[in-house]
Amino acid sequence: MAEQDFPVTEFENRTAHAQALMHAQGLDALFFTSEAEVRYFTGFRTLFWQSPTRPWFLIVPSTGKPIAVIPQIGAHLMQATWLEDIRTFPAPHPTDEGISQLTDALSNFTRIGMPMGRESTLRMPLHDFQKLMSLLPKSQFSDCTRLIQRLRQVKSEAEIAILRDICGIASRSFAKAKTLFHEGQTLRDAFQVFKTNLLQEGADDVPYLVGGAGQGGYGDVISPPSDQRLMAGDVLMLDTGATLKGYLCDFDRNFAIGTASDPVRAAHRALVEAVEAAAEIARPGKTCADLFKAMTDRLGQTDGDVGRMGHGLGMQLTETPSITDFDQTPLRENMVLTLEPSINLGDGKMMVHEENIVIRDGAPEWLSTPSPPEIPVI
Amino acid sequence: MAEQDFPVTEFENRTAHAQALMHAQGLDALFFTSEAEVRYFTGFRTLFWQSPTRPWFLIVPSTGKPIAVIPQIGAHLMQATWLEDIRTFPAPHPTDEGISQLTDALSNFTRIGMPMGRESTLRMPLHDFQKLMSLLPKSQFSDCTRLIQRLRQVKSEAEIAILRDICGIASRSFAKAKTLFHEGQTLRDAFQVFKTNLLQEGADDVPYLVGGAGQGGYGDVISPPSDQRLMAGDVLMLDTGATLKGYLCDFDRNFAIGTASDPVRAAHRALVEAVEAAAEIARPGKTCADLFKAMTDRLGQTDGDVGRMGHGLGMQLTETPSITDFDQTPLRENMVLTLEPSINLGDGKMMVHEENIVIRDGAPEWLSTPSPPEIPVI
Repeated sequence: MAEQDFPVTEFENRTAHAQALMHAQGLDALFFTSEAEVRYFTGFRTLFWQSPTRPWFLIVPSTGKPIAVIPQIGAHLMQATWLEDIRTFPAPHPTDEGISQLTDALSNFTRIGMPMGRESTLRMPLHDFQKLMSLLPKSQFSDCTRLIQRLRQVKSEAEIAILRDICGIASRSFAKAKTLFHEGQTLRDAFQVFKTNLLQEGADDVPYLVGGAGQGGYGDVISPPSDQRLMAGDVLMLDTGATLKGYLCDFDRNFAIGTASDPVRAAHRALVEAVEAAAEIARPGKTCADLFKAMTDRLGQTDGDVGRMGHGLGMQLTETPSITDFDQTPLRENMVLTLEPSINLGDGKMMVHEENIVIRDGAPEWLSTPSPPEIPVI
Repeated sequence: MAEQDFPVTEFENRTAHAQALMHAQGLDALFFTSEAEVRYFTGFRTLFWQSPTRPWFLIVPSTGKPIAVIPQIGAHLMQATWLEDIRTFPAPHPTDEGISQLTDALSNFTRIGMPMGRESTLRMPLHDFQKLMSLLPKSQFSDCTRLIQRLRQVKSEAEIAILRDICGIASRSFAKAKTLFHEGQTLRDAFQVFKTNLLQEGADDVPYLVGGAGQGGYGDVISPPSDQRLMAGDVLMLDTGATLKGYLCDFDRNFAIGTASDPVRAAHRALVEAVEAAAEIARPGKTCADLFKAMTDRLGQTDGDVGRMGHGLGMQLTETPSITDFDQTPLRENMVLTLEPSINLGDGKMMVHEENIVIRDGAPEWLSTPSPPEIPVI
């Protein structure tokens, strides 16, 4: 049996919370097609979701355990979870990619919630979804985006413990920057060295490492590495989402190569102080919009191309809520957030800084080891 | 400007091929929401797709270059591609996640193809898609799954060159197995050592590494590693999808720890011979079903839980076609395929073996260095 990342009580609690919210909204079942939600309620963790071939379905009924309707290839791994009702279908299949099994499983429910809103995707063919709806004419499919987001936004202490560990791993790797990075190094090499170090420090995987380097700033925050060589005066930024047990850290660090100009030093200080300003007020009852305002007030500018200044964090690189001027989500205890202010330096240059925190009853807990205000010079 | 993975002619050719197929089907435009298709026509490559927050849209008109409708955060990186018409929207947004921009861009087209069939997903919120359709009452959205799959199944020599490189990298790492793996090692450590070696050999990333170990076989082929220690008599299997410039290898290797039983040796020989039997007939004009039959004939059993014996390979870990008894897709020159027979050993144990080939005019080209029939003993 595959080792499980959490005790069964974790999944019992998640399911019970979901069922309480379902009851309040009059839903008979929740229906999910996406990796994060299937894993959230079952513990089923595999990288195999990268194969788009087969759909995977999960139903959370208003009472009892979730029901998995999955391709046969996943049966062995799913049987190691707390689920009892695991229905499998042969896949790939010439005509019926699980739709008959799924229709049968959903036919017991009338009011079915599924994510249809912000940040959701439909991880099954549109034609199969249309067919499913036509086979269930008495069922009402409604949006449960807010329900599942609200649920997942607040982490358990068991989840926070994993997030603390992976943020610790990345903090230790970043602390070794002066031994990992050097002038004349290609960005490609810097990325490889850093990924290797993250694995050595104990990360399971490094699915996300992006960054850039440039004189006095960089052009964007989502690029893969090139063969460009680090030069004196460059600002190097690496932003990593490394994983442990399927949970991600998500923060970056900036380094000045050789020397840091006054504008770069000032921008780095402003970014760190913006994070501190947000952390200072990050308490239950404040909102995401409050955090956004605290950061933009310090920076004297809004968010530019990035569109926000942080977000939820957990099983996905980015989760809800969004730290924007319009997201009025109240902060709640045990929300895990990134604080991610960015600053436009003109001439197509920018800098971004990011930390990971837990909202607590009082001052937030820092998961990433906070950066000092002075940009480190390598 | 970010380095590009291909010359502009690559994207001109892809687009021209798509437009020829569109013309034959009477389509005015293709509409895509998913990473692989956006990258296929633009070269836009970023790991940032792991963030589910923002949708990304691409329109391929029946003449001219593709049109990108993307969040502002991607503008800088998209401007480095060959595209000229790049329309951006602020995201996250309180009410309009690019739908107004997208509606405007699509309003010039009547007959719009989008993937709705096998292996496709809708990477935008269902509510937003429904809204889009209501805003474009004169547009007809139809399925273009076969069109885009047919196009992507045949690789250019430039794509094959990258695939050859990444398969070579993984072949070299697997060849070092006797120095990387040992009895008493935890699976977790074996995975970390192997990932690190893949990076050192030149892989950009290792998004996919799964496997297992057990006495005389393993239980499934999609599991993450555990703290289980390798013991004499175990069969260790590692299956990797490492990347180079966004293209994946996908093959595995089996190793016997200390000693290999006769049934394990025989199973390994049968699997290697099944691959050889398929490669022997893998020529343009044969079908996927022919390859499937060649492998099952050698093994004397069908595919069990996996559901197929190989698949297409390229920008995704698995692509179409599927090597199944029902997939009548004719093999065409420059298709890149995995041959992946599996064998059921009873008692919940199985073994799987996988190689990567290119269909050529004549014998296929091996991208992975073929495994010998005798299972290596470590």
